[in-house]
Amino acid sequence: MALDISQNSNVDQLVRERVDALITQRFNELVAQQIADAFKKDPAQNKMAIIASKGTLDMAYPPLILASAAAAMGEEVEIFFTFYGLNIVRKGGAKHLQIAPIANPAMPVPLPNILGMLPGMTPMATWMMKTQFFAKHHVAPIEDLLQECMDLGVKFIACQMTMDVMGIKASDLIDGVEVGGAATFIDFANQAHVSLFI
Amino acid sequence: MALDISQNSNVDQLVRERVDALITQRFNELVAQQIADAFKKDPAQNKMAIIASKGTLDMAYPPLILASAAAAMGEEVEIFFTFYGLNIVRKGGAKHLQIAPIANPAMPVPLPNILGMLPGMTPMATWMMKTQFFAKHHVAPIEDLLQECMDLGVKFIACQMTMDVMGIKASDLIDGVEVGGAATFIDFANQAHVSLFI
Amino acid sequence: MALDISQNSNVDQLVRERVDALITQRFNELVAQQIADAFKKDPAQNKMAIIASKGTLDMAYPPLILASAAAAMGEEVEIFFTFYGLNIVRKGGAKHLQIAPIANPAMPVPLPNILGMLPGMTPMATWMMKTQFFAKHHVAPIEDLLQECMDLGVKFIACQMTMDVMGIKASDLIDGVEVGGAATFIDFANQAHVSLFI
Repeated sequence: MALDISQNSNVDQLVRERVDALITQRFNELVAQQIADAFKKDPAQNKMAIIASKGTLDMAYPPLILASAAAAMGEEVEIFFTFYGLNIVRKGGAKHLQIAPIANPAMPVPLPNILGMLPGMTPMATWMMKTQFFAKHHVAPIEDLLQECMDLGVKFIACQMTMDVMGIKASDLIDGVEVGGAATFIDFANQAHVSLFI
Repeated sequence: MALDISQNSNVDQLVRERVDALITQRFNELVAQQIADAFKKDPAQNKMAIIASKGTLDMAYPPLILASAAAAMGEEVEIFFTFYGLNIVRKGGAKHLQIAPIANPAMPVPLPNILGMLPGMTPMATWMMKTQFFAKHHVAPIEDLLQECMDLGVKFIACQMTMDVMGIKASDLIDGVEVGGAATFIDFANQAHVSLFI
Repeated sequence: MALDISQNSNVDQLVRERVDALITQRFNELVAQQIADAFKKDPAQNKMAIIASKGTLDMAYPPLILASAAAAMGEEVEIFFTFYGLNIVRKGGAKHLQIAPIANPAMPVPLPNILGMLPGMTPMATWMMKTQFFAKHHVAPIEDLLQECMDLGVKFIACQMTMDVMGIKASDLIDGVEVGGAATFIDFANQAHVSLFI
C-alpha cells in the first residue's frame, strides 16, 4: 500500500509510536544528566548569608573570617549587621571592640569572675586577646578584615531597625555599608544554602 | 520510489534520525528552561527553620523578628524553642525576660561590670532596654511579636528534652505551642535553605 | 499523492511537526516528574554543617545533640570546632567544661550576679547543671555524646587558625578529629541545606 499523505493517519500513528518510544528512552538519560548538572551548579551553593549580631571583639571575627574565606572562593556573600553587631561597622567601631573576661569559663586564660569584673579588666582582656593571641599569630585586626571583605565584594547591610533603636545614622557607618531590613536579609538567604546567625 | 508502509524500515530509520536530531536540539532548550524554572520555585526557598536557644530579652527578638518578617513574605516558618529559649514560650514568660548589663561591652549603654553586677542592675537594664530603646522606637514587645508570629502561621515547637530537664509541662507553655524533639526540627530544616541557630 | 522518499521534504516537515507537538506535550509531564523526583532526593537535604564556637557546658550540648540526631537519621554531618568550641574536643576537655552562673538571667535557677561572681560559684553551677538537670533526666554527659557522634560517623574538624592562636597541637585533640580551615567548612556547608553557627 502506498502512502497518500493527504490521508496521513497511518504515518501519523507510526510516527507517534516511534517518537514516544524514543522520547521515553532517551529522555531518562538526558534529563537525568541535565538535572545532575543543574544540581552541580546549584546557584544556592555559591551564596552565603550571615547575620552578625554580636559586638564583642571575639565574636566579630567569625562573620568576617567566614565571609572573606567564602568570597575568596568566588562566592557571593552578604553580612547583615544587627543588634550589637552594628558596632562592627560604625565609623571607628572596629578598633574599639572589647571583650569582657567574665561569664565565659571557656576563655583561653580564664579569670575568676570576681577578678574579671574589676575595673580595668575589660580593657586588659581586650589588650591580651589582641596582642597575645591574634596579633602574635598573624590574625588580621577587625578593621583589616572589614577592608578585605569589601575588596572581595562582600556586601554589608546594616539593620535599619537597630539603627533607629540605637539612634545610629547612615553617616555613622563606614563607607560602603547599605541599610536594609530583615526582608533584605531573608531575600538573599532564601537563595543560599549557607545561612548563619552569629 | 513509493513508500510501502508494510515494509517500513526506511521511514522508520528516517523518523528515528529526525526525531533524535529534533529531540536533542529542542531538548536542551526546554529542559534548561524547566530546570531554571524549577530552581526559581525551589521549595527550599520558601522555608525558614529557626532554633531559639537564648532566653534573654535582647536575644528573644531576633528569632521572632526574622520569623514574622519571613511569614509576612509568605514563607513557611518554624521556631524550635530549646534550652533557655523555652522561657520565651512559657506562660507569662515573655513579659519577664531580662537582660543583664554585664559581660557585654557592646551594649548601647555599657556599664562597668563592677556596677552591672550590683543587685537591681538587671531589672534596671531590662527596664531601660524596654522603655528607652524598644518602646520609644516602636519596636513591639515580645508578647506582641509572639502573637503576630502565630497570626501569620509560624509554627512553634518546644524542645521535649529541655522540658524534661527543666521540669516544664506542656500546660506551662502558651497555647498553640507543639512539643517535639531534635528530629522534628531536623526534618523541617532539611527542606529549608535558611536555618538559623539563635 | 504517493510519497517519494528520495524527495523527503514532505515527510520531514510532517515528522518535524508531529515530533514537536508530541515532545512539547509529553515533555512537560515527564520533566516535571523527574525534576520533582530530583528535588525529593536533593542531596543537600541529607547534610548538616555545624560550627561549634562556644566552650561552655550548656552550649556544648546543642551541636552534639543536633549532630547525633541527624546522623541517627542517616545524614552526613560535620562539626567545625572553632574559637572556644575547640575546648570540647581537647583531650580531657569535655569533662571539664563549665558554666558561669552570671550574665544569663534566663538560667533555670538564676542567681543575682553579685552572688554568681563569687569564687566557687562557677564550679557549683557546673555541678548543679550536671547533676540536678542533665544526669537526673538521663541526658548523656558531653564525653558520651562525643563518642556517640563518632560512632554514628559524624566528622569532627578542628579549626587550624584557633589551634595556632591558642597554641593547641593536633596531639592535644581527642582521636579522630581532623584539622582544617574555614574553607573546609564552607566546602561542605555549600552542599547542605542546614548550616548552623552555635
